Amino acid sequence: MTTAAPPDSTGTHQQTNHQFRLASRPVGMVTRENFDYTEKPVGEPADGEFLVRVRYISLDPAMRGWLNEARSYIPPVGIGEVMRAGGVGIVVASNHPGYAVGDHVSGTFGVQEYAISDGQGVTAVDPELAPLPTYLGVLGMPGMTAYFGLLDVGEAQAGDTVVVSGAAGAVGMTVGQIAKIKGCRVVGIAGGSEKCEYIVNELGFDAAIDYKSEDVKKALRTHCPDGVNVYFDNVGGEILDAVLTRLSRGARVAICGAISQYNATSASPGPSNYMSLLVNRASMTGFLVFDYAPRYAEAIKEIAGWLASGQLQAREDVVAGLDTFPDTLLRLFRGDNTGKLVLQVADA
Amino acid sequence: MTTAAPPDSTGTHQQTNHQFRLASRPVGMVTRENFDYTEKPVGEPADGEFLVRVRYISLDPAMRGWLNEARSYIPPVGIGEVMRAGGVGIVVASNHPGYAVGDHVSGTFGVQEYAISDGQGVTAVDPELAPLPTYLGVLGMPGMTAYFGLLDVGEAQAGDTVVVSGAAGAVGMTVGQIAKIKGCRVVGIAGGSEKCEYIVNELGFDAAIDYKSEDVKKALRTHCPDGVNVYFDNVGGEILDAVLTRLSRGARVAICGAISQYNATSASPGPSNYMSLLVNRASMTGFLVFDYAPRYAEAIKEIAGWLASGQLQAREDVVAGLDTFPDTLLRLFRGDNTGKLVLQVADA
Repeated sequence: MTTAAPPDSTGTHQQTNHQFRLASRPVGMVTRENFDYTEKPVGEPADGEFLVRVRYISLDPAMRGWLNEARSYIPPVGIGEVMRAGGVGIVVASNHPGYAVGDHVSGTFGVQEYAISDGQGVTAVDPELAPLPTYLGVLGMPGMTAYFGLLDVGEAQAGDTVVVSGAAGAVGMTVGQIAKIKGCRVVGIAGGSEKCEYIVNELGFDAAIDYKSEDVKKALRTHCPDGVNVYFDNVGGEILDAVLTRLSRGARVAICGAISQYNATSASPGPSNYMSLLVNRASMTGFLVFDYAPRYAEAIKEIAGWLASGQLQAREDVVAGLDTFPDTLLRLFRGDNTGKLVLQVADA
Repeated sequence: MTTAAPPDSTGTHQQTNHQFRLASRPVGMVTRENFDYTEKPVGEPADGEFLVRVRYISLDPAMRGWLNEARSYIPPVGIGEVMRAGGVGIVVASNHPGYAVGDHVSGTFGVQEYAISDGQGVTAVDPELAPLPTYLGVLGMPGMTAYFGLLDVGEAQAGDTVVVSGAAGAVGMTVGQIAKIKGCRVVGIAGGSEKCEYIVNELGFDAAIDYKSEDVKKALRTHCPDGVNVYFDNVGGEILDAVLTRLSRGARVAICGAISQYNATSASPGPSNYMSLLVNRASMTGFLVFDYAPRYAEAIKEIAGWLASGQLQAREDVVAGLDTFPDTLLRLFRGDNTGKLVLQVADA
């Protein structure tokens, strides 16, 4: 076993690993009480395993779904288990032939300071190419989600009018930028003037709609005079319903998420304007980014190229302190973040 | 001008043409009072026109939509205009080179005894090949709708589990039969034991669910143990929502109609389980049969072959008497009909 400069002289297994474990299933909005903040010894990687010191943890809307007991595309996090989360970190000890101490890696390491991995679902990342948090943003799941959702599910073509909700979030900001690169007209829906100014002035969206202060339906009429060819939906609820009224013939709605509904305590109303799909011969298609795993490399290569050329910007909203996890997670559902929300594990 | 044995010695223009004209836009369920029963002289076809004596009139769920003022895929019927309807009839006078007296034709002739046409949207039909009402059913729009909705939009494949609602109606009964011919497992949803027995015993569906007496969700679990690959939706509402909970991975939902909602006076709730599309990477696509007009001939040829071989059955529910139109139309929305609902113009 190879070991990096040990956190203390007795080895990593003597170190404390701070973790958030699921204590109870939330009803409605997530609270601090749904999690236990626990301490465990770090432990040592067995043969074929390696130990990762987690540097940044990804906070994602999908986390809310993993807390529910209901059957979904992935099993729920069990009570008492470390909360599931993507992250990037550095290998600090290894008994795995493929990973050496000092390697930077991305994987589902959980909300904790240290993770032991057998390499499943782990990818090496290059900190020279982009800052580590970017591997949780445009070069990570949000980037993959944006890329395949827009181009494969939404089939966006040059000349299309693309509308994206959650437009200042990790996925939305990437969707809009890729759509611009591909020659689309792009309208983003976001909450608050700051986000709206950001996506238009910094990211080059053609227009922004502030759903907190504007009548979304009316604004869509103004900004999408010829209708909407592609709608990339991150939010669901009333905004989805409003966009449905503006679909053009043959429009594609890509259902990526419904963050407005994730903390609802009663059954959420469905999109009552769905019959617009019939009138406009349009489709609404759900997707999960994991299905595109065999093609991630293709997307990463193209996105990295755009990053390098300055055509696409990354932005992360980094909050320091593992112990802030439950409160920081809430920022997502309040829409407080601009760009990819990332938790920095203290002082890594 | 050629003229058939005239209805009276003074010619067709002296004859009375009974018609239903739209008097007012219905709020909620259609009523008799929404129509005026009018009498006009038959009139004579101008150059390039011909006169049709209407024999059978098609009653369709879509008619309800044409009564609303709202913009849709087709302009609404105007107040004072003859109610729009498909029909089949016989040419009784012609100044059109393409149509001769005695020809049988299908077209949008309206709810009236006589129509003057310039041939636009009119097709010749052969009464030797199938009874005239069948040209309003499996060989008409409902047949085309079933064929393209199931095979093109729903992409039904051998081995798929296909669920269809409104299964004993004109479109649904055809969808199920074509799906069986194509090697699918077929479950029909219909109202009442008579219809359910009909689709299983007479049409060969694998199973039927009586939404009036059964828990649809539970019955779907029983009859679709591996989930639903294709759902052909004619009804919308709670049944759509129930089927969404049973979609299998990559399922296709073809949105053909939502008859349960057409007479609603308040905004109908949307399908609250639409996020099942995401979990199951499924799609929901609306379509209008008119878009397939260039391919009707292909469908008619195949369906006529199945009719001839006995693999597919036609069934029409024929009600006699033009003057019964408003009441007969209501049978559709009450779900009283089995098979294609057709109005027989008295004694034609």
